[in-house]
Amino acid sequence: MERTLELACELIRRPSVTPEDAGCQALMAERLSAIGFHCEDMPFGEVSNLWAVRGTEGPILVFAGHTDVVPTGPEAQWQSPPFEPTLRDGLLYGRGAADMKGSLAAMVVACEDFVAAHPGHPGRIGFLITSDEEGPAVNGTVKVMETLGARGQAIDWCVVGEPSSTAQLGDVVKNGRRGSLGARLVVKGVQGHIAYPHLADNPIHRALPALDELAAEVWDEGNASFPPTSMQISNINGGTGATNVIPGELEILFNFRFSTEVTDAELRRRTEAVLDRHGLDYALEWNLSGQAFLTDSGELVAATVAAIRDEAGIDTELSTAGGTSDGRFIAPTGAQVLELGPVNATIHKLDECVRADDLPRLAALYRGILERLLLD
Amino acid sequence: MERTLELACELIRRPSVTPEDAGCQALMAERLSAIGFHCEDMPFGEVSNLWAVRGTEGPILVFAGHTDVVPTGPEAQWQSPPFEPTLRDGLLYGRGAADMKGSLAAMVVACEDFVAAHPGHPGRIGFLITSDEEGPAVNGTVKVMETLGARGQAIDWCVVGEPSSTAQLGDVVKNGRRGSLGARLVVKGVQGHIAYPHLADNPIHRALPALDELAAEVWDEGNASFPPTSMQISNINGGTGATNVIPGELEILFNFRFSTEVTDAELRRRTEAVLDRHGLDYALEWNLSGQAFLTDSGELVAATVAAIRDEAGIDTELSTAGGTSDGRFIAPTGAQVLELGPVNATIHKLDECVRADDLPRLAALYRGILERLLLD
Repeated sequence: MERTLELACELIRRPSVTPEDAGCQALMAERLSAIGFHCEDMPFGEVSNLWAVRGTEGPILVFAGHTDVVPTGPEAQWQSPPFEPTLRDGLLYGRGAADMKGSLAAMVVACEDFVAAHPGHPGRIGFLITSDEEGPAVNGTVKVMETLGARGQAIDWCVVGEPSSTAQLGDVVKNGRRGSLGARLVVKGVQGHIAYPHLADNPIHRALPALDELAAEVWDEGNASFPPTSMQISNINGGTGATNVIPGELEILFNFRFSTEVTDAELRRRTEAVLDRHGLDYALEWNLSGQAFLTDSGELVAATVAAIRDEAGIDTELSTAGGTSDGRFIAPTGAQVLELGPVNATIHKLDECVRADDLPRLAALYRGILERLLLD
Repeated sequence: MERTLELACELIRRPSVTPEDAGCQALMAERLSAIGFHCEDMPFGEVSNLWAVRGTEGPILVFAGHTDVVPTGPEAQWQSPPFEPTLRDGLLYGRGAADMKGSLAAMVVACEDFVAAHPGHPGRIGFLITSDEEGPAVNGTVKVMETLGARGQAIDWCVVGEPSSTAQLGDVVKNGRRGSLGARLVVKGVQGHIAYPHLADNPIHRALPALDELAAEVWDEGNASFPPTSMQISNINGGTGATNVIPGELEILFNFRFSTEVTDAELRRRTEAVLDRHGLDYALEWNLSGQAFLTDSGELVAATVAAIRDEAGIDTELSTAGGTSDGRFIAPTGAQVLELGPVNATIHKLDECVRADDLPRLAALYRGILERLLLD
C-alpha cells in the first residue's frame, strides 16, 4: 500500500472523536522524531496538542491541523464502519478521511520525502497539531499559539490541512476567513396588561425601528477577497406566552460575519450608535469568535500557487468562503496562512471519503511548497 | 341584617369558583319565582345559566351578571376565609363580594321592592345569569343570547352588574367596551447557515419593516367615548436556539384593542395590506374576542344617570375603559347596555370586599332605573 494511504488508514483506525486524540499524535510524533523533529506534547485540559520542529534557525513553515474528528452519526447507516478504513472503487472511506487525517498523513510523508532528499535543508519545518478543532477550540491551537508567543516563537508561513478543494485536489486554496462576532441584546421595557398600553412600555415596539435599521445597514462593500460583511439575527424572543400581556424584555441574538474592510471594534461602535440613537434601554454582550484574516500575497501564496500548477497542472483559486478555522488563531500573529487539503464534499457526513490517489498527490503538493519556500 | 347584605352573604357562602355555580342560581331563582318570575335553567356543557322573565309584553330591562368567581389565591393569606362572608369595619369581605355577588343580591332585592310596590308594572324584567364569565366565556352569555335570538327574544335595555365604580358607588358607569382582535402571524423564510446568508432567507429581517410599520400605524384617533385603537405585539419568537442558524420561521402574536371608529374587518384588511406590500410569505390567523360596543345615549343612559343623581347625589361618568365584559355578547343584538356595580378596587385580589352600606344603595339604584324605564 502507498505510504500516505497507509498512514491515513492507521490514523483513521484511531477513533479520535473530539476532543479525543486516541494516539494519533503519538504516531505522528514517532514518524517525525525518526526524521529529526523535536516533538513536544502540549496538553491543555483534556486536549492533546503536538508541537514539533525540525531545524534550528531561519524561516519556519508550519503544517497545522487536527487529529480530532466529528462524531460518526448513526454507525449502522455507514456502508463500512467509520473507524475501519476501507478502500472501495478508488475511494478511501472512514471518519476523518477528508477532515483531516488524509492531510496529516500527506504532511508527514511530504516531510519524510523532503528530508530524505534534503537532510541539511535551510530554515525550519514545524507541526502544530491539536485534538480540539471540531469542539470548543478553547484548549487547542489558541493555547499553543499563546505558549509559542510567550517563548518568542514566531511563525512565518503556515499551511493548514483543512479540506479546501471542491471538485478536484488543489482547485481551491483558502487564503483567509471572514471574522465572526456574536452579540446578545436585551431590550428593556415595562411589562403590563395589553388593554392598558399607556401603563406599559413595549420593548418589541421599541426595538423594531433599531433592528430594522441594523438589518438594512450596509456595513461595508466587501473587497476582492471578501463578500460584504453580513449581519444576521439568529434568534428573537419576547413575550410571556400570554396573549394579553406586554412583555418587559426582548432578547435578540445576532452575528456578524465580517470582511477585512471593518474591525470588530468598528462593528460594535456602529451597532451601539444605532441602539443609542433610538433611545433604547438595553444590555449588550459581545462575543468575538474570530478576527477576519487574509493572506492575499507573499511567498507562501506564490509557492503554493506554483506547486499546484506544477504538480497538479491547475490554476488554483484563492478563496475566503466558508466558516472559521484554526487559521484565525495563527494569522493574527503576522503569519502568512493558507489552507490546502482534499475535496471537502463528504466532510462531517455519513460515508466520509477521499480519493485514494489524492493523498500521495497532496503529499507531493506539500513537498512542493516546502521546496519552493525553504530551498529557493 | 339588611336584606341585600344578607342575600350577598348567602351567595358568597356558595364557593362558586368558575365555572361552578354552587347553587347560587337556584337561590336566585327561588327568590325570583316567589315574585312572579318565570325561571329557566339553560345549562351548556358544565356551565349553569339562568334566564328569568317577569311580565309578558312590552319593553324588557334585563339584569345580567355572573355567579362564578375567580380562584381565591392562597387562602391562608386572606384575613378571613374567602367563602365565609365577614363584616369588619363596615366592609363585607369574601370572594365575589364586589365581583359580583353583591350586585346579584342588589338586583334581586331591587326587583322584590319594585314588584311589591308595582305588582302590575308594565313591560318586562329579565335576568340573564351565567357561571362562565370569569372563564372561557364560551358556554355562558353568548350561548344564552344565541338561544334567545333563535326564539326571537330581543333585549331592549340591559344593566350588567360588573363593578364599575372607582372611588364611590355610582361614580362611573361603563357604557361600552373596546373590541379585542387577536392575531397569530407566521412569517416564512428559508433556514440556513448564518455563514451563507445568500442561501437562506431570514424571516426576522423580512418581517422587521412590516412589523415596524404596523407598530407605528395610527389606526384611528379614537372618539369622545374611546381612546385611539391600540395594536400591541405580545409575543415574538424566532430562532433555533443555535447562534449560527438563520431560522425558517418567525411567529408573532399581536392584539388590537379597538374603538368604534374601526371594525375588525377594516383592521384585518389594513394589516394584511401592510404584510402584502412588504412582500412577505406569511400565514395569519385571526381571533375576534369581542366587537367594540357603545351605548352613548338613549333611555337607559338617561334613566341610569338620573337614578344615580337622585339616589346617590352624584353626576356619574360614562366610561368605556377596561377589559371586555359579557356586554360584548348582548350589545351587538341592538340592546342598550350599561354596566353599573360597586367599587372595583379589590376585585380578583386577596381580601376582596365591598362597603356593606353600598349594597342596599346599589339595590336602590337598580330600582330607580326600573322605575324610570318601566313606569315613566
